[in-house]
Amino acid sequence: MDYRMEHDLLGELAVPNQVYYGIHTLRAAENFSVSGNPVHPELIKALGVVKQAAAEANMMLGRLDKDKGRAICQGAAEVAQGELNEQFIVDVFQGGAGTSTHMNVNEVIANRAIEILGGTKGDYRVVHPLDHVNLSQSTNDVYPTALHIAAIRLALPLTEAAAYLQEALQEKAAEFAGVLKVGRTQLQDAVPVTLGQEFAAYAQAVSRDHRRLQKAKERLRQVNLGGTAVGTSINADKQYIATVIERLRSLTGLDLDPYENLVDGTQNADVFVEVSGLIKTSATSLLKISGDLRLMGSGPRAGLGEIRLPELQAGSSIMPGKVNPVMTEMVSQVSYQIIAQDLAVTLAAQAGQLELNAFLPLVAANLLPALDTLAKTKIMFADKCIRGITVNLCRCREEVLNSTSILTVLAAKIGYEKATELAHQAIEAGVPAKDVVLQSGLISEEELETLLAMDNAVKAENHIH
Amino acid sequence: MDYRMEHDLLGELAVPNQVYYGIHTLRAAENFSVSGNPVHPELIKALGVVKQAAAEANMMLGRLDKDKGRAICQGAAEVAQGELNEQFIVDVFQGGAGTSTHMNVNEVIANRAIEILGGTKGDYRVVHPLDHVNLSQSTNDVYPTALHIAAIRLALPLTEAAAYLQEALQEKAAEFAGVLKVGRTQLQDAVPVTLGQEFAAYAQAVSRDHRRLQKAKERLRQVNLGGTAVGTSINADKQYIATVIERLRSLTGLDLDPYENLVDGTQNADVFVEVSGLIKTSATSLLKISGDLRLMGSGPRAGLGEIRLPELQAGSSIMPGKVNPVMTEMVSQVSYQIIAQDLAVTLAAQAGQLELNAFLPLVAANLLPALDTLAKTKIMFADKCIRGITVNLCRCREEVLNSTSILTVLAAKIGYEKATELAHQAIEAGVPAKDVVLQSGLISEEELETLLAMDNAVKAENHIH
Amino acid sequence: MDYRMEHDLLGELAVPNQVYYGIHTLRAAENFSVSGNPVHPELIKALGVVKQAAAEANMMLGRLDKDKGRAICQGAAEVAQGELNEQFIVDVFQGGAGTSTHMNVNEVIANRAIEILGGTKGDYRVVHPLDHVNLSQSTNDVYPTALHIAAIRLALPLTEAAAYLQEALQEKAAEFAGVLKVGRTQLQDAVPVTLGQEFAAYAQAVSRDHRRLQKAKERLRQVNLGGTAVGTSINADKQYIATVIERLRSLTGLDLDPYENLVDGTQNADVFVEVSGLIKTSATSLLKISGDLRLMGSGPRAGLGEIRLPELQAGSSIMPGKVNPVMTEMVSQVSYQIIAQDLAVTLAAQAGQLELNAFLPLVAANLLPALDTLAKTKIMFADKCIRGITVNLCRCREEVLNSTSILTVLAAKIGYEKATELAHQAIEAGVPAKDVVLQSGLISEEELETLLAMDNAVKAENHIH
Amino acid sequence: MDYRMEHDLLGELAVPNQVYYGIHTLRAAENFSVSGNPVHPELIKALGVVKQAAAEANMMLGRLDKDKGRAICQGAAEVAQGELNEQFIVDVFQGGAGTSTHMNVNEVIANRAIEILGGTKGDYRVVHPLDHVNLSQSTNDVYPTALHIAAIRLALPLTEAAAYLQEALQEKAAEFAGVLKVGRTQLQDAVPVTLGQEFAAYAQAVSRDHRRLQKAKERLRQVNLGGTAVGTSINADKQYIATVIERLRSLTGLDLDPYENLVDGTQNADVFVEVSGLIKTSATSLLKISGDLRLMGSGPRAGLGEIRLPELQAGSSIMPGKVNPVMTEMVSQVSYQIIAQDLAVTLAAQAGQLELNAFLPLVAANLLPALDTLAKTKIMFADKCIRGITVNLCRCREEVLNSTSILTVLAAKIGYEKATELAHQAIEAGVPAKDVVLQSGLISEEELETLLAMDNAVKAENHIH
Repeated sequence: MDYRMEHDLLGELAVPNQVYYGIHTLRAAENFSVSGNPVHPELIKALGVVKQAAAEANMMLGRLDKDKGRAICQGAAEVAQGELNEQFIVDVFQGGAGTSTHMNVNEVIANRAIEILGGTKGDYRVVHPLDHVNLSQSTNDVYPTALHIAAIRLALPLTEAAAYLQEALQEKAAEFAGVLKVGRTQLQDAVPVTLGQEFAAYAQAVSRDHRRLQKAKERLRQVNLGGTAVGTSINADKQYIATVIERLRSLTGLDLDPYENLVDGTQNADVFVEVSGLIKTSATSLLKISGDLRLMGSGPRAGLGEIRLPELQAGSSIMPGKVNPVMTEMVSQVSYQIIAQDLAVTLAAQAGQLELNAFLPLVAANLLPALDTLAKTKIMFADKCIRGITVNLCRCREEVLNSTSILTVLAAKIGYEKATELAHQAIEAGVPAKDVVLQSGLISEEELETLLAMDNAVKAENHIH
Repeated sequence: MDYRMEHDLLGELAVPNQVYYGIHTLRAAENFSVSGNPVHPELIKALGVVKQAAAEANMMLGRLDKDKGRAICQGAAEVAQGELNEQFIVDVFQGGAGTSTHMNVNEVIANRAIEILGGTKGDYRVVHPLDHVNLSQSTNDVYPTALHIAAIRLALPLTEAAAYLQEALQEKAAEFAGVLKVGRTQLQDAVPVTLGQEFAAYAQAVSRDHRRLQKAKERLRQVNLGGTAVGTSINADKQYIATVIERLRSLTGLDLDPYENLVDGTQNADVFVEVSGLIKTSATSLLKISGDLRLMGSGPRAGLGEIRLPELQAGSSIMPGKVNPVMTEMVSQVSYQIIAQDLAVTLAAQAGQLELNAFLPLVAANLLPALDTLAKTKIMFADKCIRGITVNLCRCREEVLNSTSILTVLAAKIGYEKATELAHQAIEAGVPAKDVVLQSGLISEEELETLLAMDNAVKAENHIH
Repeated sequence: MDYRMEHDLLGELAVPNQVYYGIHTLRAAENFSVSGNPVHPELIKALGVVKQAAAEANMMLGRLDKDKGRAICQGAAEVAQGELNEQFIVDVFQGGAGTSTHMNVNEVIANRAIEILGGTKGDYRVVHPLDHVNLSQSTNDVYPTALHIAAIRLALPLTEAAAYLQEALQEKAAEFAGVLKVGRTQLQDAVPVTLGQEFAAYAQAVSRDHRRLQKAKERLRQVNLGGTAVGTSINADKQYIATVIERLRSLTGLDLDPYENLVDGTQNADVFVEVSGLIKTSATSLLKISGDLRLMGSGPRAGLGEIRLPELQAGSSIMPGKVNPVMTEMVSQVSYQIIAQDLAVTLAAQAGQLELNAFLPLVAANLLPALDTLAKTKIMFADKCIRGITVNLCRCREEVLNSTSILTVLAAKIGYEKATELAHQAIEAGVPAKDVVLQSGLISEEELETLLAMDNAVKAENHIH
Repeated sequence: MDYRMEHDLLGELAVPNQVYYGIHTLRAAENFSVSGNPVHPELIKALGVVKQAAAEANMMLGRLDKDKGRAICQGAAEVAQGELNEQFIVDVFQGGAGTSTHMNVNEVIANRAIEILGGTKGDYRVVHPLDHVNLSQSTNDVYPTALHIAAIRLALPLTEAAAYLQEALQEKAAEFAGVLKVGRTQLQDAVPVTLGQEFAAYAQAVSRDHRRLQKAKERLRQVNLGGTAVGTSINADKQYIATVIERLRSLTGLDLDPYENLVDGTQNADVFVEVSGLIKTSATSLLKISGDLRLMGSGPRAGLGEIRLPELQAGSSIMPGKVNPVMTEMVSQVSYQIIAQDLAVTLAAQAGQLELNAFLPLVAANLLPALDTLAKTKIMFADKCIRGITVNLCRCREEVLNSTSILTVLAAKIGYEKATELAHQAIEAGVPAKDVVLQSGLISEEELETLLAMDNAVKAENHIH
């Protein structure tokens, strides 16, 4: 392998000739070789587009030579399209507020631009990572801006995924609208509901995620680009700020705006906590739903057995015919992970000091995967679980007749005290509640059937708007 | 002490004659004597107002005898005004989705109503806790509705407190607008900022809390009252639901609406997670601000010493003259507690099963204190810390001249490389950066002063709108 | 009410004559009026005993006048016995590393000692809170030492409670040793187990808590008393340190030792995180057990219905005969709270800076209640839930015969593939697995009964030591 | 590419001919394509060694044909040595308690064994993934056992890393033993300490990690291998259990033992919570240390500036000469991540139900990386930060003379009140405390120097054993 020598304030280092990154990247890759996990590709792409916007603004304002500028723009665009992804080698857990990933991007763009201009990689007289690629910029405005963009972009498929899951749940709600079953509170038989009502409730909970994600995007659309080192726009000016933001809107198609106060936007990371909190909220709803499906699908014989989840794979190497609720378990685990990732984002955000939060890489390492896996999870949950759920009608009907939940329906007619007495009788005698009710003579079989007709039993008018 | 005998399905129990609660409350108080902490008084008040609304609705629809109804309304109103607070004796950590606190309220109102009607406490033929006080209701709609109301009510002073703190920070931002100092990133000397800019950034962060709290209230204003046991409105009807919500709006003055889907509203607690996440976000901003103030106030001699926090109490029993940043420490601790409380709310919410979340008492035990202490904390932070902060002007000025941050200002003029060289010279020689700069002859003292004139140094145009 | 005037470096304040606390306490109570929750009484008691030990050591070394010393000892002993609890009025969320609660203790002891000596409260010439009560001490060694002692003392009943719960579970394990039932993995019918094995597994998990608590006490027995302000023992000496530790051992009966490195012991709070982590571990086991009991007790008809939890109170105001698993729900909620409290302890501990952790009050506010409620919870769980559990034998037997779990037992005999085929047949046909097995002719009824004889079915030899 | 057809209960699938995994793996890889992150390689290796031990035991007991057995052993050994790592393609977030990764291992070993025996991959008549490779085993004992082994193995380098870091800190403690500086409590100047004492305190805190890790390994050495599906050892027997454990000890060199109660060992995951809690404790100590180093290294001019951290890379693209504390920041971020990972482990463990915890993959996905990154972090922290730290002697000395910390030393001589007065004078006048002290005439310059002689100033006898 061929090498070129590069130097920095600490000395010289041999850089493989074929790579686009340089000495700063190499040092950082070595310094932070801790987890082996790379930075999320959406963050790299977003850094690319920010660099492109900056180069375009610098050219428009006559601060960057057109030839250099065009080459930088091309390099940046390639980064923005994910074409040079393998060039980004710094670990997710890096010190320095993102400087190392940022320098990785600066060096890759510089060397790609040098190559485009016919120069030799490493000859930074042609295009310099700092003087040209980073002109009018600082890690402290470029990195947070890119993080906002990456988060917004990942929120988009997540929004679609929420709608997709909601739709799948609504379809099941319609399909199961006529399935009367026992409703349970505190896992105890309570009053009749329909399986459709349960799925409608899940759909409704997921619909709130949709709104939350809209809010999340709204939170993130303010960026601190132009604030440079500490938000005071040192080495940048008003004209540049206006231009670079305009370029960034144009390149991304996102409705971005500068922070009202760039000093604030540079040092405070509360917006990420807010967004992460919304994602976490979504995860708690998934935990509720996936847990419920496991309960209702428990069995097949010695469980509730009300529904049957689709078989995705053989369940057990030792137990014949066993099929496990693996998709719901994956959903639960991803959701728990997201709760943990929310804590990491919170810890990072609260630890900012004075003009900067040095822990944004930790935010990126947790928030971006959370957005990403949550979107994929919702799609898979819909496709590989929800849509394939079937109902065990006999079981549901049998439960209603056996359980004392029918007595709740009767209580309005025969009085709470009498109903309680019959409930105890049924439980003592170990016979279906239905039998006890009929034997009591308080109600005829015909009347009972009328009461149990689904509409009466569940008072389905709960959609009151 | 006199006693009356009361009975339930488990047997008889002697209840002190002077108390308003009854046998269900006594059992629950004994069953759950675990933490010794009572339920938050705002929740009790909110339960009172819900019971009053229900009684009024039942009267209006002719389902509740006027005499009984009026007495119940009076009892409920007294609970709603906090007049019977000492009657609520069940522990915060209660099993049963809030049933015990709810029964405590039902019994207190029943016995108070009996008393009003001239009956003997415990003679539930006069007014019955369930048949009359709880008519058309269930714990599963009453308790969550009351929890929403209590949270909204506690969010109101919190909103005001956020505005109050923001104002105090803005006043300081104005006061300190002319104080040039060293800005620090990663705790390293970076570029000049003004102390005013720092306080303006704090104010801006706190202003986002204000907006978040508005959102929180918006989230909470949908209630599931009328859904009864599982959201299917068993034992209630459309007319009742419309009436009781209208009464509740009127009594509380809050813009309440029923959930679109009452089954959803009864079983899902994600809204609390969302609101708690917003409160937590606010706490992370307070951690950032309180931590910064400790840093800037560190010293008085062997620290940054840029500001001086007001003295609130003697600091040390062993160290003469030591005054500690105790208010900032209280703020930090409350904020950490809120992050932990957010976790408790999250854990409670994700653990709901089927038609109900049995862990709402845990939500109440964490969310309500979080709202409450955060409001008080923000007021105290403003009054006992922020407003009393003074600046050490000499220290701030001296820092700027000593530190290499002035070289960042110069870099645009003399080039990055030359500036780096001077920075190293100053550090090597251990002399103020200003001296090295002047000796270099690259710039005259006059030019330097012009550059350091605050407006130039900090590029104060960061408020770009 | 009568008042006396006291003064400090901030000025004068009127203190009610009948109270023992003084001006520092009053200022702190006002400064930190945020949560309304008092400091845990065990911490106050522990502070009392530390002050007594210090006074005794100072007397023994001739540094404290005998008369003053004896009066201080008496006052401190009264605090140590909880006799003056209502005098401790500072909020749990106090800034200042515990200084305010410590000064509260110093002032109460001083004024009580003055009273004993016939002086007038507030006349600190007689006994001074700092010069006499706090002689050779600092908040920074007294407070952490007291926190260790309080935690050890609360760990004692917790240890007993763990043993008590373990015993209750073991008794049930013995009682249910002969109850064959379906074992479930991932909530799917798997292979037979006995109910006794399940309770034995719970008992075993709880037994690990017992060991963990021993470890916790071991961690806590090193204290930093004698380190004074920063662990360098300024204003104390070797003789004093040896003596005071000896007195503290004697007064508490605890096997206390000084930290090997007092500077370390003063600034690092990792020991609390370790102990809290052990408590949290215990909470996760309780969550598993309480959740299982709710599952097995679900029903009574439309659930697993294998066991019946004792009735502690009426379950529902709307549903006749419903009895809820309230004790398990209380256990779960306390456990979730402990997980959250562990986070608060963690956040407090990591935030220490240089020579001190200023956030020990937050540790105290979370760790001590966690220890306390966990102990009470375990006792109540044993008494009000575990001991009263009964089994539904028919249901358990029926499940085993119906479910394919018997096929797992057969697989070793008839082959995995054949067993799978029969399992599918049984499920398709909707008939008990037992019927399909017998119809297959692969095994006789007699052989089946032999296989299902409990010992064979569950291979009860799992206790392999 | 060539394909072979494989089938399972869901149908047929084409498997690339060159891969060793089979249809179950393919289905799982597709089902769980959510995070893109693979299972930790140490877990794969540990699964390999468990399969090898099982095959050896089965051969020894005559249950597995020698030829098949030897081939299986070879395949398993290759997995155990990490030689087939690229064959393990199932996502970390998989449903099913680890079944999918386990089946991935079974299939890879089966096909490798078939290959060794000269068969055609996919021809499971030669060696079957379940009937032969998985003989006498279940996911539910194999997977947890492997997770224990992987965790123990990762704990070994972590133990060494803790010792390594401790040593580096101790060396610095010795080097800096003579450096007197201001000790700070609550970031306020307090009393003199030496820089050596501070590093000794860090070393001491890290030494506790060492002990904790020993405990962690002790916790993990009990495994549930032999318990099969639910811990009742169905399809296994006593002889097998004894033999397989003996083989596993021999192959791993680890002091493994079976759980006392295998049912317990199969369903309870509290041991992972305990171990994770210990790891988290270690992380809080790193947060304290790394935060302190950033504080002491803040500046170089406008900060505490007491120490200088080694330069690892250029710090800023915009600020000349700025060098950032990047290694401490990486350490802090890894530590925060570990706190979050501990939460994920906790959430997974508490969610176990009945005979199994289905969420062990989530435990693996968090605990193993935590152990791994923590070990690497400690080594890097020692090598790239601690060992290169230098002290700014002048700054430390100057601080002591300027600050009122010298008055604390004097208080014992001149009285607390007089010392307080002088402290205020010094602060009011803005002059060094030393000057005020000497002007007071209360002490001569000579006496002062004697008092300030390091040994007297810091009472260095804090190592009292």
